[in-house]
Amino acid sequence: MANTLRITLDDCQALDQADPLRALREQFALPQGMVYLDGNSLGALPKAAKARVQHALVEQWGQGLIGSWNKAGWAQLPHSVGDKIARLLGARPGEVVVADNTSVNLYKVLSVAMQMAVAENPTRRVVLSERLSFPTDLYIMESLCRQHKLELQLLDAPEIIAQLSDEVAVLALTHVNYRSGEMYDMASVGKAAHAVGVLTVWDLAHSIGAVALDLHRGEADFAVGCGYKYLNGGPGAPAFVWAHPRHTDRFWQPLAGWWGHAEPFAFKPDYQPASGITRFQSGTPPVLSLIALDCGLDSVLVAEPLGGMAALRTKSLALSSLFIDLFDQRLVEHGFGLATPRDSSRRGSQVSLTRAEGGYAIVQALIERGVVGDFRAAGQKGEDEILRFGFAPLYVGFTDIWHAVDQLCEVMQSGQWKASRFAQRQLVT
Amino acid sequence: MANTLRITLDDCQALDQADPLRALREQFALPQGMVYLDGNSLGALPKAAKARVQHALVEQWGQGLIGSWNKAGWAQLPHSVGDKIARLLGARPGEVVVADNTSVNLYKVLSVAMQMAVAENPTRRVVLSERLSFPTDLYIMESLCRQHKLELQLLDAPEIIAQLSDEVAVLALTHVNYRSGEMYDMASVGKAAHAVGVLTVWDLAHSIGAVALDLHRGEADFAVGCGYKYLNGGPGAPAFVWAHPRHTDRFWQPLAGWWGHAEPFAFKPDYQPASGITRFQSGTPPVLSLIALDCGLDSVLVAEPLGGMAALRTKSLALSSLFIDLFDQRLVEHGFGLATPRDSSRRGSQVSLTRAEGGYAIVQALIERGVVGDFRAAGQKGEDEILRFGFAPLYVGFTDIWHAVDQLCEVMQSGQWKASRFAQRQLVT
Repeated sequence: MANTLRITLDDCQALDQADPLRALREQFALPQGMVYLDGNSLGALPKAAKARVQHALVEQWGQGLIGSWNKAGWAQLPHSVGDKIARLLGARPGEVVVADNTSVNLYKVLSVAMQMAVAENPTRRVVLSERLSFPTDLYIMESLCRQHKLELQLLDAPEIIAQLSDEVAVLALTHVNYRSGEMYDMASVGKAAHAVGVLTVWDLAHSIGAVALDLHRGEADFAVGCGYKYLNGGPGAPAFVWAHPRHTDRFWQPLAGWWGHAEPFAFKPDYQPASGITRFQSGTPPVLSLIALDCGLDSVLVAEPLGGMAALRTKSLALSSLFIDLFDQRLVEHGFGLATPRDSSRRGSQVSLTRAEGGYAIVQALIERGVVGDFRAAGQKGEDEILRFGFAPLYVGFTDIWHAVDQLCEVMQSGQWKASRFAQRQLVT
Repeated sequence: MANTLRITLDDCQALDQADPLRALREQFALPQGMVYLDGNSLGALPKAAKARVQHALVEQWGQGLIGSWNKAGWAQLPHSVGDKIARLLGARPGEVVVADNTSVNLYKVLSVAMQMAVAENPTRRVVLSERLSFPTDLYIMESLCRQHKLELQLLDAPEIIAQLSDEVAVLALTHVNYRSGEMYDMASVGKAAHAVGVLTVWDLAHSIGAVALDLHRGEADFAVGCGYKYLNGGPGAPAFVWAHPRHTDRFWQPLAGWWGHAEPFAFKPDYQPASGITRFQSGTPPVLSLIALDCGLDSVLVAEPLGGMAALRTKSLALSSLFIDLFDQRLVEHGFGLATPRDSSRRGSQVSLTRAEGGYAIVQALIERGVVGDFRAAGQKGEDEILRFGFAPLYVGFTDIWHAVDQLCEVMQSGQWKASRFAQRQLVT
């Protein structure tokens, strides 16, 4: 698999010089000297957010006060930011709304999908998902299956298509796996699911802003996703919801708050859901965080004249391919394995290394050297530990990849990762 | 009812000079020349929030990036801010968590309360509330009653106590009514409810930061509330949840996301709810908005050495009493009525005027003169329109009340409110 020619730092510098998206990095306030490969967990700060958020705080809130809901357009932000997200999903304006967090939004769409599926055919009693989905997705499914008295079946990824049947109500999947970085082919899954009448719900947390998406072509029924990873929306940025327009008006979503009402400011006693995606809002959205997310979206959409998501995807795959080539050349010998598919069509925008042990300390030692990735402990069934490296194509360069691998080699060769200061784990890693 | 002595501007200036809380106003960045009487809808900007939010953005997010979840304490914010809120609720540290918005939090606690009530006694089939509760509360109740096949009974406030019985599962009330400003006596309601085994759920959106609260003495079972009104947390600030400690560990709340898991960063496939209030979190919280809320809490808690909520309540009632006195002396003649109780023990921190018509235009004309209140249209049953004036005791002064009433008289005497520019309603008022 490995390239026979040994890759050099010069090669990587040449790739950066030839990169048509290189200037986009200037949008971000990255720490001097840091190689940041954790944008799959928390995206970088767009410089524009500093002035935008401060303006929202000082002028819109401080001076405009309550009037800013109208005059500063706060009330429209869930839709205006949603429309920007729609451009990254192959969705049309008006099809996406920003609200709440990913877990809460998944609860809404899964609940509607379950109601729809069972109303159509009460013999469909199974919700199908992948054993290694992001856990919060599994927890929400578990909660809703208890509530609706459905059965949750968790399978390994390769078994899923074969298990689709007329007993399955809903198939809920994370499009790009948070541990391995492996990606489903949405179009073939969507086709197989619809062939047997199964509704699909996608969690796009690790896809949006990293992978070109087309929910309509992918025959998706519902989708949710996260604002704080590749969208650079800031810590805990609000999430988004998309539902196929033919589904939106059929059932209530259970978090039937006033922002999803047909006339929220008429203050009527009965719930009358708004038509379209609006009803997937619940209560008042966190405006400051929404404005930061708006800046994050702008940092992605600025790439549109340069080829947009297709160009970002091309660069992202070039980055991860380079990392895999360097893995073959320099990391295998240090006891690392590869969790991420070599087939680029099955890969998101991260590469995950496996290791039997020591992963946490290795990541900490690497962070001390200015290269930020992250660690995921071994899960069930005696799996390996995971070291994750995310390649946000907006601000990661080819020389960054070189330095990351180079420093990782240094950490291993020096034995530095065995120092006692790296032994103590912190809560959030 | 009216004072026989006519109140003068001099009297109000003397009251301001004698006000021991007067200096607290300096904490806020209020627009020059504005009398802001809408803190019951959106609180004012604490000056400290400018630097805190900017620091969170530039240093914690921009430079600290993913590491700030640990190093900057982001992960602890839902609890640390929750502990500050607990001090305003008569609750103990660890009993409150900040999460999501009020509608979503109400969904969580109501769902748990319904599960508890029905598990104990399946013949309890009724959820009781007030017809004029804030509508989003009614919508969430409606949604959950459909889900749990319970009956929602909406009554007028005076009828409620008499309807408590062993057929009632849960009594869910807004403590201070958003329209009238009328307040329930929590302790007597709590006692009456518990006497017949009914669980109480309180929405404290219009109480927290305005009224001294003691949830334990009030025999409350669950409570939620809003961060962006009297807590000055900024537009769409996250909300909070309190559950009596004897209830927290008995049932799942349905939005069983990873932030409510016993070991969120172990990424286990099965949901194991954390013990205590932690399980009432769902997904990742919006950090920037949470930090603004933290500043808002500080702006309230700074009053603790000056007497805390008791002192703020005393001032709040002095402000609203002054407004009512001036209403009697100057506003009755212009066709206004009073929706708010004259009995101060039954009043929150706002006074609402009624009017048969023209309310929206009058409020707009008043805003043009620099006095900001707000308008609520007539609801069901041929009610009057409502003009609301909120008196946040941290930054509203007695001369502000004078000027507000004086300008309202001017608006009426001049007929200015009939100008065509005030006819067009905007979405959010």
